[in-house]
Amino acid sequence: MNTGTGISDWNALDDAQRAVLLARPALSNNEEIRDAVRRIIAQVRADGDSTLRALTRRFDGIEIADFAVSAGEFAAAERIVPDEIKDALDAAIRRIEQFHRAAMLADVRVETAPGVVCERVQRPIEKVGLYVPAGTAPLPSTAIMLGVPARLALCPQVVLCTPPTRDGGCDPVVLVAAARCGIRHVYKIGGAQAIAAMAFGSETIPKCDKIFGPGNAYVTQAKLEVAQDPLGAAIDMPAGPSEVLVIADDSANAEFVAADLLAQAEHGPDSQVLLLTPSRAVLDAVATALERQCALLPRAAIATAALQYSRLILVKDLAQACAISNKYAPEHLILNVREPRSWLAKISSAGSIFLGAWSPESVGDYCSGTNHVLPTYGYARAWSGVSVSSFQKQITVQELSPAGLQAIGPDAATLARCEGLNGHERAVTVRLQTLEKNA
Amino acid sequence: MNTGTGISDWNALDDAQRAVLLARPALSNNEEIRDAVRRIIAQVRADGDSTLRALTRRFDGIEIADFAVSAGEFAAAERIVPDEIKDALDAAIRRIEQFHRAAMLADVRVETAPGVVCERVQRPIEKVGLYVPAGTAPLPSTAIMLGVPARLALCPQVVLCTPPTRDGGCDPVVLVAAARCGIRHVYKIGGAQAIAAMAFGSETIPKCDKIFGPGNAYVTQAKLEVAQDPLGAAIDMPAGPSEVLVIADDSANAEFVAADLLAQAEHGPDSQVLLLTPSRAVLDAVATALERQCALLPRAAIATAALQYSRLILVKDLAQACAISNKYAPEHLILNVREPRSWLAKISSAGSIFLGAWSPESVGDYCSGTNHVLPTYGYARAWSGVSVSSFQKQITVQELSPAGLQAIGPDAATLARCEGLNGHERAVTVRLQTLEKNA
Repeated sequence: MNTGTGISDWNALDDAQRAVLLARPALSNNEEIRDAVRRIIAQVRADGDSTLRALTRRFDGIEIADFAVSAGEFAAAERIVPDEIKDALDAAIRRIEQFHRAAMLADVRVETAPGVVCERVQRPIEKVGLYVPAGTAPLPSTAIMLGVPARLALCPQVVLCTPPTRDGGCDPVVLVAAARCGIRHVYKIGGAQAIAAMAFGSETIPKCDKIFGPGNAYVTQAKLEVAQDPLGAAIDMPAGPSEVLVIADDSANAEFVAADLLAQAEHGPDSQVLLLTPSRAVLDAVATALERQCALLPRAAIATAALQYSRLILVKDLAQACAISNKYAPEHLILNVREPRSWLAKISSAGSIFLGAWSPESVGDYCSGTNHVLPTYGYARAWSGVSVSSFQKQITVQELSPAGLQAIGPDAATLARCEGLNGHERAVTVRLQTLEKNA
Repeated sequence: MNTGTGISDWNALDDAQRAVLLARPALSNNEEIRDAVRRIIAQVRADGDSTLRALTRRFDGIEIADFAVSAGEFAAAERIVPDEIKDALDAAIRRIEQFHRAAMLADVRVETAPGVVCERVQRPIEKVGLYVPAGTAPLPSTAIMLGVPARLALCPQVVLCTPPTRDGGCDPVVLVAAARCGIRHVYKIGGAQAIAAMAFGSETIPKCDKIFGPGNAYVTQAKLEVAQDPLGAAIDMPAGPSEVLVIADDSANAEFVAADLLAQAEHGPDSQVLLLTPSRAVLDAVATALERQCALLPRAAIATAALQYSRLILVKDLAQACAISNKYAPEHLILNVREPRSWLAKISSAGSIFLGAWSPESVGDYCSGTNHVLPTYGYARAWSGVSVSSFQKQITVQELSPAGLQAIGPDAATLARCEGLNGHERAVTVRLQTLEKNA
């Protein structure tokens, strides 16, 4: 079996070839998808539930009378899902909650001058919408990765949309995961129509202020569209296909590295997989292990397709590997090297980092405690993964006493005048004059 | 003089009338602007500096040989700007730095299971671009509101673009403000072409990962466009016209309230200005004071235009005022009431809040310590103002010991299997099997 994996020597390439090597494939949000998504959004805005039903009939091949998951369906899911899975969900939720709680922002209060108190307070986003895809398989892990921080943020209204199963039901593990995060408003609707419904509301599905979660090219395009509309909704982040970059030294176990690369490759044919190593022996051993292990996977066809675009790159040393990784800015970065912590400070851009031989990326996907909704496609240069603060707003507050205004008001008046904003100046001076008069 | 201010009684209106009252005017990013901006971006990407020079000739009516501000120009600015303004800038920077530093995120380290360490570390965004508008007047305050957090975040590369003056120079106060924030890469270029240059780079202007700052409809549209392009740049937030909502009780000084409303109205003819009060007397007094004070302003024409869309609204009580304000989600909220702090907990959406009679919004614009780059146009429902973390990425890290993987690996394997992702499962089990073999 030929995985088509491409081996390259970084230092034998010129700049143009290097750029090609690190280039991600073009996103599939072509004009056709964009136009289709715009039509769907317009239809949902115009006709609400009846359009949602028609689109579900068309895309999911199923007639849904009521999108809302009933209490009976929740109860049935609770009965169906085996204890082993429930226990794993509970343990994962416990650790995710622990880490996300520790990373929550504190309120801030500073007196920047006598009588001038500045604060930062937190408020939950009132209405949030979570999207849990179920393309090749339903993803209960995404339900907990979004549900846990939404609960910690105390968002008053949390709705979750996920595509219906073929019999018009809802994946029971997703329901159990949602219920464990306190989410009771689950709707059986998927695709761009689900995003449109959460952004603009329908008779059944409430309008949301912000929409979270991954999805296929249609879902991603729909999120971009509704985020562009001031009447739509904010989104967690722009998204592209999932990706991993592994930096390995000669201490790395090639079987582990190959398994990590394949865990990424099986996500989809457009997944991105890169290995950077200064060891030619590791490079060759990983290439061989990739072929052997790939054949063992139920999703070998998908993984093989993704590996067509994978890069196994020989580098000079680990410092060069870190520099290349920073340029690429991977969603997931595995540092499978001796003393991985000593290289951490060299990493300037990545979504989530996995240190050492015993930290496979899969644990971050499910249960180490960190979030798995992370910036892809180079967005890690400027974006961060989902956290509790993604579900909150930070509001600043200032309270001045008369003495406080007398202390800093003249500075404001000076700067306002220099900007030609005399109304701004007057808002200060009218108060200062009143204080003088009453003194 | 008729300011055209509209007085309404909230409780005499039906839902439709209330919706109209709180509706913001449509944004001016119409198709004409969008097409013009797209053309500008395409030209800049294709031809770089030569296009930038041609566009500056066309829009600013000036020939610029070198966009980069020289050391000589910085030195001249330092000589020209009066000490009073320098001192006000220094004091403002000191307080902004103090508040923004206090609000910085701490690193996080949690052991979520024995041998499973999860962390969150911060990294500066490598290359940031700041835009400082100079439409009706240059805005040095924006230079410090962006420059101070960029410096605290330790961004390695900070560039600032601002439109050239009519003689091809650069506003000296903006230069002094930039220099005080450690910014030495200032370029004399404005409008959509400046945003395009920072997003994609030109011979002179370096490509940036994220672009910050307010601007006119062209700048705003350009920011939206480059944020949509994965090869472009992230942006701080979507933007609309500036706005203030004042909640006043019968203790409020109508002159103060009117001055605050006018300080907002003078920003531009599309500025939004709202007053909510349960006091008919205050409402009438403010309406009268508005007319009188407006006539005193050099920018009376702009303020008068903005007041056409202003709303003076009679409400039942302060609780209703807070509820309406939350629905509107103003950029600036002034609580000019007795015991303002007792109402703070009722506010769920706003950009920045000003408590009490002695906290005019102008102090937040310049020097209280909080940031003045805030979500407008209802975006405060889901967005926060600029802070140091706007200039940083949060990266999560996990490091598992063999025991750590043995503790949580089985949960990951269970959940991966249940999602049909056997490659994810194998990345865990291949390691667990190795540990067993070596035990």
